Amino acid sequence: MAAVQGVGYETMQVHRFHRNVSENELDYIVQEYPVALIYNGISHAVMMATPADIEVFAKGFSLSEGILHSLTELYSLEVHQDELGVQVEMTISSRAFMALKEHRRMMVGRTGCGLCGIESLKQLYTNLPTVSSVVSSTWLNQIPHAIAQLKVRQKITELTGGAHAAAWVVKGQIIALFEDVGRHNALDKLLGYLAEQKLNVADGFVVMTSRASYELIRKCAQCNIALLATISAPTSMAIEMAKKVNLTLASFCRGDGFVLYTE
Amino acid sequence: MAAVQGVGYETMQVHRFHRNVSENELDYIVQEYPVALIYNGISHAVMMATPADIEVFAKGFSLSEGILHSLTELYSLEVHQDELGVQVEMTISSRAFMALKEHRRMMVGRTGCGLCGIESLKQLYTNLPTVSSVVSSTWLNQIPHAIAQLKVRQKITELTGGAHAAAWVVKGQIIALFEDVGRHNALDKLLGYLAEQKLNVADGFVVMTSRASYELIRKCAQCNIALLATISAPTSMAIEMAKKVNLTLASFCRGDGFVLYTE
Repeated sequence: MAAVQGVGYETMQVHRFHRNVSENELDYIVQEYPVALIYNGISHAVMMATPADIEVFAKGFSLSEGILHSLTELYSLEVHQDELGVQVEMTISSRAFMALKEHRRMMVGRTGCGLCGIESLKQLYTNLPTVSSVVSSTWLNQIPHAIAQLKVRQKITELTGGAHAAAWVVKGQIIALFEDVGRHNALDKLLGYLAEQKLNVADGFVVMTSRASYELIRKCAQCNIALLATISAPTSMAIEMAKKVNLTLASFCRGDGFVLYTE
Repeated sequence: MAAVQGVGYETMQVHRFHRNVSENELDYIVQEYPVALIYNGISHAVMMATPADIEVFAKGFSLSEGILHSLTELYSLEVHQDELGVQVEMTISSRAFMALKEHRRMMVGRTGCGLCGIESLKQLYTNLPTVSSVVSSTWLNQIPHAIAQLKVRQKITELTGGAHAAAWVVKGQIIALFEDVGRHNALDKLLGYLAEQKLNVADGFVVMTSRASYELIRKCAQCNIALLATISAPTSMAIEMAKKVNLTLASFCRGDGFVLYTE
């Protein structure tokens, strides 16, 4: 297994077929590993993620899932790994841990997985965060230029073809970009970085290479991101949720154009 | 909300921007709804899925997650919906329900979500199914032709640009295809259809439009699928798991070529 703070890809010999002729070649593969997120000794979630930038991933997940209100509630963070995967051991404030335990107590016996921490369909639409930051009048015009900058920054995708990217755009320029096999993980890494660096979320917007699904909207809203722009399609629930939480959603951002799904 | 057995998409007015000029237009959006899977009265999982072909989705999920050994253990299946989402109420055999309850009892207090039913990293690699069916010598040559047939069959994607597809290929021809916003859901719909129609899984292989991630490998192996071919990249864990479960994995299937990651 690669280093926890590794490059996020590995190499292997593969057989490339073209018109029934096969050649051996060295290929680059994006890494996907189980990452256990452990709070005050209790394993809360196991996520499949690309093992690069694990610290900001754990911070971003904790914030975007509402476990922490801010990083001041995170007292320590240690990353370990063994042959089975990666463990992130976090110590969090009593307030955050009590809230997490209460949340988990409510889940026991009633829920399954598939939705992070949702114990019933009803809860999906309750306790939704609301975005209070405002979309600048110039941001929509900046989307095409921001999208055009993505490709040269996607180092893992350039080699492996297999990762999503989430980028932070200020004044039309990408100033940070994170990659992961999971689009929600790429976003969590970016959100963790913004919080860690104490960057003002009112200063810019998020661009992603993926589709727009509901969980990206919820995570952005939880962290008070005002505008999300994605290259691929949105889902019906992503649009519905974006409207509810007051987040501006632009998708199919390609070339000089995009489609605005909220107003 | 659309009908449970609906078309999987809906329409809405959007603003299409091109070079800073905006026009209103009617757009087609792929549907994503919470679908609760309930066994003998106990809600086991809530999945975000496209509300078309929900019955085969529930059957496929039950089989590919190992909850049912075969559809003979499924005594009834009813689909309901309300404003919050879709509920699939299933009655399953005592054997299957006892096993599910035991599995859930082990999970309580120790697990989070993110991985379906995994209570620890260790369990990810234990109880793995093994593929016993065999890849026919002609199948690899059939991949390019099968991939070429996908596009005209992807009705939801044609309109919305936002769904994954999983198809069943026999003698080089696609004979069934299902779509969903979630790639694992598209596969579950296909696997449920194969079981419902009593099609022999040794007769063909699965083609998917998505990347190859570990959960697709696990679901295919659980249903004894011998070959999975995907258009996009595989992850490191997908390759590792494919080797462990004896499943043949071909990815980057594009034009006349593909890459074989197992042998």
